[in-house]
Amino acid sequence: MPPKAKESKGKGMVNLKVPKGTKDWEGKDMVIRDKIFNTITDVFKRHGAVTIDTPVFELREVLTGKYGEDSKLIYDLADQGGEICSLRYDLTVPFARWLAMNPSIQSIKRYHIAKVYRRDQPAMTKGRMREFYQCDFDIAGVYDPMLPDAEILRITTEVLDGLNLGSYTIKINHRQILDGLFQICGVPTDKIRAISSAVDKLDKSPWEDVRKEMTEEKGLDPAVADKIGEYVIKKGGRDLLDELLKDETLTSNTAFASGLKDMGLLFDYLEILNVMPKLSFDLSLARGLDYYTGIIYEIVTEASAPPAGKGHRSKKPPRPIDPNDPDADRSNDDSIGIGSIAAGGRYDELVGMFANSAKGRVPCVGISFGVDRIFSIARAKMLEEIRGNEVDVFVMAFGGKGFTGLVKERMEVCRMLWDAGVKAEFSHKVKPKLPQQFASAEKNGVPFAVVLGEDEMKEGKVKIKEMGLPEGHAEKNGVDVELAKLVEEIKRRISAKNTRELGALVEDVAKVVLDDVKQDPTKE
Amino acid sequence: MPPKAKESKGKGMVNLKVPKGTKDWEGKDMVIRDKIFNTITDVFKRHGAVTIDTPVFELREVLTGKYGEDSKLIYDLADQGGEICSLRYDLTVPFARWLAMNPSIQSIKRYHIAKVYRRDQPAMTKGRMREFYQCDFDIAGVYDPMLPDAEILRITTEVLDGLNLGSYTIKINHRQILDGLFQICGVPTDKIRAISSAVDKLDKSPWEDVRKEMTEEKGLDPAVADKIGEYVIKKGGRDLLDELLKDETLTSNTAFASGLKDMGLLFDYLEILNVMPKLSFDLSLARGLDYYTGIIYEIVTEASAPPAGKGHRSKKPPRPIDPNDPDADRSNDDSIGIGSIAAGGRYDELVGMFANSAKGRVPCVGISFGVDRIFSIARAKMLEEIRGNEVDVFVMAFGGKGFTGLVKERMEVCRMLWDAGVKAEFSHKVKPKLPQQFASAEKNGVPFAVVLGEDEMKEGKVKIKEMGLPEGHAEKNGVDVELAKLVEEIKRRISAKNTRELGALVEDVAKVVLDDVKQDPTKE
Repeated sequence: MPPKAKESKGKGMVNLKVPKGTKDWEGKDMVIRDKIFNTITDVFKRHGAVTIDTPVFELREVLTGKYGEDSKLIYDLADQGGEICSLRYDLTVPFARWLAMNPSIQSIKRYHIAKVYRRDQPAMTKGRMREFYQCDFDIAGVYDPMLPDAEILRITTEVLDGLNLGSYTIKINHRQILDGLFQICGVPTDKIRAISSAVDKLDKSPWEDVRKEMTEEKGLDPAVADKIGEYVIKKGGRDLLDELLKDETLTSNTAFASGLKDMGLLFDYLEILNVMPKLSFDLSLARGLDYYTGIIYEIVTEASAPPAGKGHRSKKPPRPIDPNDPDADRSNDDSIGIGSIAAGGRYDELVGMFANSAKGRVPCVGISFGVDRIFSIARAKMLEEIRGNEVDVFVMAFGGKGFTGLVKERMEVCRMLWDAGVKAEFSHKVKPKLPQQFASAEKNGVPFAVVLGEDEMKEGKVKIKEMGLPEGHAEKNGVDVELAKLVEEIKRRISAKNTRELGALVEDVAKVVLDDVKQDPTKE
Repeated sequence: MPPKAKESKGKGMVNLKVPKGTKDWEGKDMVIRDKIFNTITDVFKRHGAVTIDTPVFELREVLTGKYGEDSKLIYDLADQGGEICSLRYDLTVPFARWLAMNPSIQSIKRYHIAKVYRRDQPAMTKGRMREFYQCDFDIAGVYDPMLPDAEILRITTEVLDGLNLGSYTIKINHRQILDGLFQICGVPTDKIRAISSAVDKLDKSPWEDVRKEMTEEKGLDPAVADKIGEYVIKKGGRDLLDELLKDETLTSNTAFASGLKDMGLLFDYLEILNVMPKLSFDLSLARGLDYYTGIIYEIVTEASAPPAGKGHRSKKPPRPIDPNDPDADRSNDDSIGIGSIAAGGRYDELVGMFANSAKGRVPCVGISFGVDRIFSIARAKMLEEIRGNEVDVFVMAFGGKGFTGLVKERMEVCRMLWDAGVKAEFSHKVKPKLPQQFASAEKNGVPFAVVLGEDEMKEGKVKIKEMGLPEGHAEKNGVDVELAKLVEEIKRRISAKNTRELGALVEDVAKVVLDDVKQDPTKE
């Protein structure tokens, strides 16, 4: 979706456009977006989550000191007297503020799908905007280790499977494993966060570049960097965990050992929840944000992977970002990272930053889905299935010379249908032409027409016509029904059509499975 | 809902509150709000409407010159370089901007439910906020007279009946009738809008006060005011229309006659759509906004009516507004008017203000539902029916001495339920106590418990317990089922419980009808 060039400015007229980095959501895009939100929300509710909704702006002091360098991207409201406010930058800080304000709530599973605001250089072709949606799910509360963490990852698989985005990988690591590793390799304590953020770039830069950043920019001893390099390329599943557990140099470090213990327990739980097949324990995953304290994760799909030439193993250096190019890819300062469609982790200290007593410290673990990126991936596939509106019946009329238009009769029939909860429309012209009425119905893919004719009406009859029937079909020209039975008959037909389409779908799936079995008779 | 006093400020801590005039939506309020939105959205979709979503801020010039004096209430974004923007003030101007930007869209039924922003003095106890929801439905496009207008009013009745808000009245009038009336009575052209806005106050001020405003403040000839007074007290249905049609002084005025003609046609259509019983043709209805050009309407319910002492017929003057009192009732500058829950009308010129050619002129008719006020009315009634979350099954465990907590087994059972789409939860404690697990389930009104015991698990069995069964019920202590049949059995029971509740409801209704028939045997 390239940005639209629909600007125009007439004599003394206003600049007819939306602000830079924002867009109007309309038409089928809007329907697809809602379907994505509904799929995600259904999963959250299946796990007992509830939603909260916070104001679009917060007191500026609530946001201050939470986003490091990125604070310069916060949108401020003008000072028009009264409180100083800013638009929210994400949904996590408002959630932490809400938890701190409501100390009686000691535990909650909450989701929040809403727009956030960043004064970034928009690269709209990459799906990055100044106003964009975030979709967050978090579990707050004091629980036994790794139980909420495991459920969050299960929820993640249910969401991604439900959205039908194709294959994906959950990259996982642990802040304590990473910090322990840096200690073991000899990184000075004051350099740990800086080195960690360099390691995080390994998903889009080759090791040589990252090493250079560590040693030249950040002044790390090259021997220490090389030692780090031995470990951070490792990835795997339980095999990697077992390998690390055998290394006594590593396990003698308290942080590292504690992180490994968490990871082992988490793997046990994820086995039961059938999440392990999706997992990649990846020692290079570091995540940019400072506030994570435990496990961290990021979900990548093939469709969302960075373009060739920027990959982990590539020798080609990434194109440097031109600060004057508004379309340069700045995805790396996005909160979910390049090529990923969701990310999160455990943050046990954030709520405590707002609270004024130890009681106010609420441990949390959460995930944020990049819904705009998910939208870009899902759009092409969903576009075919989507209708312009949800109407099931278009009520129309036709007649010969002296045709009155039957507007009151069309209205009467619509009233009957609406009363029965049937989605129906009629033309707002008194004497509409029949082809125009059919065109309106076709434009939105309305499946049924009810056609009123003057002669038929006198006999108390109307015609039901299913749209799009093939030539030669017995009902191609419609069937007459008594007006008194119309509602009942149309409901029966809508339901039958839905069942028929479901049946055809089941048949298609069955055919694929059968073909599969034929090719490999050992399969059940 | 009085505003919460949950502020606190510790040592060096931030001011822990939301900005003035905003609120967090949480808990059951959030569930009720969503139910209201869903009910409304279902009606809109039944009529073929689609939704669009515009940015929360617009270029400031888009909003300039649209709201008259109220422009001072617009929230501006700070000038941080780049475009100058403001938060949207309503949903109508962004819709008009969008129509002007998309000239290929010549007709649309669109709805939009979203927050708007006004730097008003909040009177939170009255349900008025600085950040609040609007819910707009509009039909844009060139159609035959009164057809979209009639459908909008039909939609209004479906929404209000669907929300079950009790009895309500649709007050209706026509800008041309009103303007014609003022011409006939001798109001100078340059005073028409000012006199119109004085007349609009008749729903909360007695005629004497309105007359005083006209003559003393606005310099109208007292004889002219008295002539107006004869007409604007009139209200009725088709009887009033017939009465006005007979008055040749009135019908000789072009504007008045044209308005009456519209109204007559509209009544014909509303008869068919079964809306007439709700209608009150009210010559005192004027509506504040300047941009209306045709019929105008406002919906009042008993529950939303202004308090006694402020009514139309009252002799007691209204309490003057103290500009320093943040809680003073300023509902009269609200876009939907005091005591009303929805309002709207036809505005044929607004889109043209943005367009730079005659082709860009798109006539529109619409309605805005005051969802915050509807929320206040519906809340008490809905609160009883609402559960804390939507979970149907709480999976729990118990055991005697040496109880392990069965956490993996509880997780396994949840996985089975989630896989089958059943909404389920388990405690995130490794060894939770049974009473605590039941308390968690009860808190959210979860209808079923699945209880795992170590002995039962060995036999491959679990217990299903329906919550809240009366003492002595055969299944009060639950029933054992095979684990392999759990999912099937629990789905059957959830569905049976829902049917049972529906059955009980039908029985209740049937009883009322039967009692009614017994008292009056002539009824069918």
